[in-house]
Amino acid sequence: MKRGKWNVITDVEGVKVGHVTLYEKLNEDDTICTGVTAILPHSGNWFKEKVPAASFVLNGFGKTAGLIQVDELGVIESPIMLTNTFSVGAVLEGTMGYMLHENPEIGDQTSSLNIVVGECNDSYLNSMRLMAVRPEHAEQAIVKAESGVFEMGAVGAGKGMICYGVKGGIGSSSRIVEGENYQYTVGVLTLTNFGRAHEIKIADWAPDDLEKPDGSVIIVVATDAPVNERQLKRFAKRAAIGLGRTGTHVHNGSGDIIIAFSNGYMIPHESTEMYTENAILRDDSAVMNDLFQAVIEATEEAVYQSVLHAETTIGRKGRVVEKGNFKLNK
Amino acid sequence: MKRGKWNVITDVEGVKVGHVTLYEKLNEDDTICTGVTAILPHSGNWFKEKVPAASFVLNGFGKTAGLIQVDELGVIESPIMLTNTFSVGAVLEGTMGYMLHENPEIGDQTSSLNIVVGECNDSYLNSMRLMAVRPEHAEQAIVKAESGVFEMGAVGAGKGMICYGVKGGIGSSSRIVEGENYQYTVGVLTLTNFGRAHEIKIADWAPDDLEKPDGSVIIVVATDAPVNERQLKRFAKRAAIGLGRTGTHVHNGSGDIIIAFSNGYMIPHESTEMYTENAILRDDSAVMNDLFQAVIEATEEAVYQSVLHAETTIGRKGRVVEKGNFKLNK
Amino acid sequence: MKRGKWNVITDVEGVKVGHVTLYEKLNEDDTICTGVTAILPHSGNWFKEKVPAASFVLNGFGKTAGLIQVDELGVIESPIMLTNTFSVGAVLEGTMGYMLHENPEIGDQTSSLNIVVGECNDSYLNSMRLMAVRPEHAEQAIVKAESGVFEMGAVGAGKGMICYGVKGGIGSSSRIVEGENYQYTVGVLTLTNFGRAHEIKIADWAPDDLEKPDGSVIIVVATDAPVNERQLKRFAKRAAIGLGRTGTHVHNGSGDIIIAFSNGYMIPHESTEMYTENAILRDDSAVMNDLFQAVIEATEEAVYQSVLHAETTIGRKGRVVEKGNFKLNK
Amino acid sequence: MKRGKWNVITDVEGVKVGHVTLYEKLNEDDTICTGVTAILPHSGNWFKEKVPAASFVLNGFGKTAGLIQVDELGVIESPIMLTNTFSVGAVLEGTMGYMLHENPEIGDQTSSLNIVVGECNDSYLNSMRLMAVRPEHAEQAIVKAESGVFEMGAVGAGKGMICYGVKGGIGSSSRIVEGENYQYTVGVLTLTNFGRAHEIKIADWAPDDLEKPDGSVIIVVATDAPVNERQLKRFAKRAAIGLGRTGTHVHNGSGDIIIAFSNGYMIPHESTEMYTENAILRDDSAVMNDLFQAVIEATEEAVYQSVLHAETTIGRKGRVVEKGNFKLNK
Repeated sequence: MKRGKWNVITDVEGVKVGHVTLYEKLNEDDTICTGVTAILPHSGNWFKEKVPAASFVLNGFGKTAGLIQVDELGVIESPIMLTNTFSVGAVLEGTMGYMLHENPEIGDQTSSLNIVVGECNDSYLNSMRLMAVRPEHAEQAIVKAESGVFEMGAVGAGKGMICYGVKGGIGSSSRIVEGENYQYTVGVLTLTNFGRAHEIKIADWAPDDLEKPDGSVIIVVATDAPVNERQLKRFAKRAAIGLGRTGTHVHNGSGDIIIAFSNGYMIPHESTEMYTENAILRDDSAVMNDLFQAVIEATEEAVYQSVLHAETTIGRKGRVVEKGNFKLNK
Repeated sequence: MKRGKWNVITDVEGVKVGHVTLYEKLNEDDTICTGVTAILPHSGNWFKEKVPAASFVLNGFGKTAGLIQVDELGVIESPIMLTNTFSVGAVLEGTMGYMLHENPEIGDQTSSLNIVVGECNDSYLNSMRLMAVRPEHAEQAIVKAESGVFEMGAVGAGKGMICYGVKGGIGSSSRIVEGENYQYTVGVLTLTNFGRAHEIKIADWAPDDLEKPDGSVIIVVATDAPVNERQLKRFAKRAAIGLGRTGTHVHNGSGDIIIAFSNGYMIPHESTEMYTENAILRDDSAVMNDLFQAVIEATEEAVYQSVLHAETTIGRKGRVVEKGNFKLNK
Repeated sequence: MKRGKWNVITDVEGVKVGHVTLYEKLNEDDTICTGVTAILPHSGNWFKEKVPAASFVLNGFGKTAGLIQVDELGVIESPIMLTNTFSVGAVLEGTMGYMLHENPEIGDQTSSLNIVVGECNDSYLNSMRLMAVRPEHAEQAIVKAESGVFEMGAVGAGKGMICYGVKGGIGSSSRIVEGENYQYTVGVLTLTNFGRAHEIKIADWAPDDLEKPDGSVIIVVATDAPVNERQLKRFAKRAAIGLGRTGTHVHNGSGDIIIAFSNGYMIPHESTEMYTENAILRDDSAVMNDLFQAVIEATEEAVYQSVLHAETTIGRKGRVVEKGNFKLNK
Repeated sequence: MKRGKWNVITDVEGVKVGHVTLYEKLNEDDTICTGVTAILPHSGNWFKEKVPAASFVLNGFGKTAGLIQVDELGVIESPIMLTNTFSVGAVLEGTMGYMLHENPEIGDQTSSLNIVVGECNDSYLNSMRLMAVRPEHAEQAIVKAESGVFEMGAVGAGKGMICYGVKGGIGSSSRIVEGENYQYTVGVLTLTNFGRAHEIKIADWAPDDLEKPDGSVIIVVATDAPVNERQLKRFAKRAAIGLGRTGTHVHNGSGDIIIAFSNGYMIPHESTEMYTENAILRDDSAVMNDLFQAVIEATEEAVYQSVLHAETTIGRKGRVVEKGNFKLNK
């Protein structure tokens, strides 16, 4: 399938991505090697214009916050934030601070706010116990978010992540689904921190396995196709299929979680109308299966892109995780 | 059914409850009127000895953290923390700090840690935007937790909560299920912040409704009956039935979430054994239906106890929420 | 809340109900005491005009068929059929036959068909092992379905059912939710076969408990309010709350299943359009909470109506189940 | 990973498979080209000795019956039956008849019975509207079931199925997971009726696509590893990953459903004991990830085996579906 202009999630119009990377060797034992990545669902006010959304938990050994409300109401009303496992609290705090500042009515004249934070465990390279990510790093990641190309690999939340035994982190890809009267984009961003070296499908290459606990992967699927929350859950399940294609056995200790949203239409926080009315793709529309394919392909490629872009990284205790030495030959 | 010794959740042996209450009038507009409540599943090390657990989301307009992993692995490995909606991040941070201190191997030699935090929106009385709860308050609530009787009503996480139009907060109740060869306890703790005045079933009493957004309720069910994670989900659904008996219509904006655990047996974090082996109650055991009844009754009463114990409270903007003026006549 | 014209599910315009009752004493041991009830979602072609729908399983000790597809696609495309536990197969067959006859393209030029069948275990009174319900009984129930009032109590699928220790079966109730510019109806039909005598909330009356396995309850919620599949799942959960109000402890062996649909708009099976576009109620619309209340109240009353209308019935082995001797005083 | 003795699901000791195949050209238009396949979970009485079980719905455009109770109670108590979409009712009836005959107490002295029936739509080749499968065919499939090798491809429920544009049907594969003190078998049986020709991963081969509605796939995972219902749901999700590896985009109209069980221990229907006690694999046991891998690999291969064994088949309207012309080169 045809890729988007930059072959990244920001090919979906309005979506922005921002990173804050923390990297500092503190002493022989400790290195801060982590960060925050923010994915903004559109270029407006996310609380006032919510996007339809859904999630799928492939393997729930993970601490992602905010999905209960996404499942109940079918919307996301905040940036989607990614970080390390021990920093979900700090990132919640920082994102909350940012959103409260932007929306003085939240928690005062109007209701509360639901924030989505995904995480992976970067403790092989990062001195995660030091909880170096602070609330302001979340705010900064949001502020720095931009349209268009963005850095991938060992950056932002991906700084300390490991995928299939080599350096992983942030990857992204996109696909275009088009016909005579329509053109839709599917973009995927992955935070990859999963898999053993021998599992990867793509490579003639097989590094030695690191002795480390299982990791995780967070997959964010964005589209401008007008689909509803139920259909987005279907997208999220297809992302799991795309992930599976890369070879993972979905280990016990891997928190493999997919979050999907559409900014093809929005649900206003407040309205004088009793009703919402949006044109939604029919499930049996030919384009639906194409969108499923787009999700699968973009997810598969996003995983590989995370590895292709990630440079060799030295972390705590002098541990080195090498760059994956392979070519994407398809 | 027979109540436990103190008719509270701590009748389940090993369970402890601790509160930190924050209350301070800052100026005409702002009052801090909130807190944290910690429920400790047993008296040992919760990470090293995990308890079987499950959850049920009756209405997911809520931000409870940690349930994805509970659903996947069927265990809780931390205290269950309750606070206000905007303080989930701070409480995650504080509980993380406490747990990391107690368990130097987490995030270093061993894997990560999943923390469960429930919340309700206390912004009618509490200046919630000020985010007054700090990580240390979570740690303090854990440290202060004790066996036996504990304060209920407008205390801890319940300080600013409102139930059925009057002052709500922390309530608790327990039931004993016994036979010739067994005696089990079911204890329930509720953080009540839901309902409209006219909905309550129990009272001849009907205060005027407050103009406020819908609230929420968190229900924690504890037992020493040896049941597994699947059976605990059944318990959690029965707690929803007990809640419903009090009259609520389960409003759109109410995050009504139930978390159930058993400390009747534990799952060690590490083991030289490949297997766990525990005696579990058969589903068709006569005692199972009795336990269901116990969950329903204790939940219903815990809601009422939260109101019975809660004193009139003055919050931000001089708002007053009155004590419920009724008697529990059954 | 205001009741509908007839205070039954057929107050929702277009909904029809039909019964086939089978009752015959075969010999000292065996009595056929069972039947089929059909609920038609609207007065058109259900396959060509599907209705948005959802389900909630309160306790899954039940054999209801068809819910997987309802959950995936968010629609019902057949009558909702009720019968005894061992007759799900026959009723599937008969309903399939009816639908295939009405729609010659199904399974030939177009795709397959999903049929929803709910059941309760009537084996205390009915010689259920004889599998007396045949496919043609399902067809007859559909053909006989009518608008307006219909028989309740020991009739159709309710012929052999037992509720709270007395005769149960088919009950129904409805509520009107209206405002300046809208009027919506919520109708509920229950097939009641659950509960022990001492559990019922309403009565000063307490028959001796029958020695029998736990039963079940199927609850069908209909509305003309334009809500989508996600919102209908919320309705279904509120029906569980209404059920709980009647006193049940939701026993281990009880299959307590709720199916909710709206005929406020429909999804055509085929369309030249890529999109569907329907005005849907906003979740935070004031009417939503009123609809929740309507579901709860109508469910509670439908359970009681099933008992109020059910006459004393003699079943297999000469077993007698008495009419409930109480008044509905609220 | 090492394969089992016969590389089929019956490598799991006690598991048996039986087919009834119906094939008859009736006239120019109509051909009966369908059947029933029975998978017996163990060699004893399935009602009296239930096996732990779980399911996962990858895409719920399907009519599989019986999963609600599997999810609630975590057990299967019947054979797992496979057939075409319109024959779920007949197969339910026939299996019910068989089970009632074998267990005279069901529906009389003891409770009811839950039967699991999976299906795919074979209407491209089979005159499915004629509903040729009768209850007795289900009984026959059970009676004919045997240990050891069994026929694969266009046989039993697979007679009319189509996979990736060529002839599909019944496939199976198995894997051995072993260590010093243990040896476990994972066996998978697939009923394949999904995918478009261009999607398949394995082949240099690409037939023209048939013009037909999307199909489905039912995957049955069996193991003798002692895992519980929660862990079996994890197995079921890994089977979806194995399926995804073969290339499918999981189309809108495909009912992709996985059922997993273990006969490593059993739950007796009745017991004088209040408790069950079974040694269960720890989630973090090294063998668990190996079992996940085994499920993925055996599922992937079972899909391919279904195609490799299926011969060119002529169905209704003279339609021909060709044998897949490829070699399994890995």
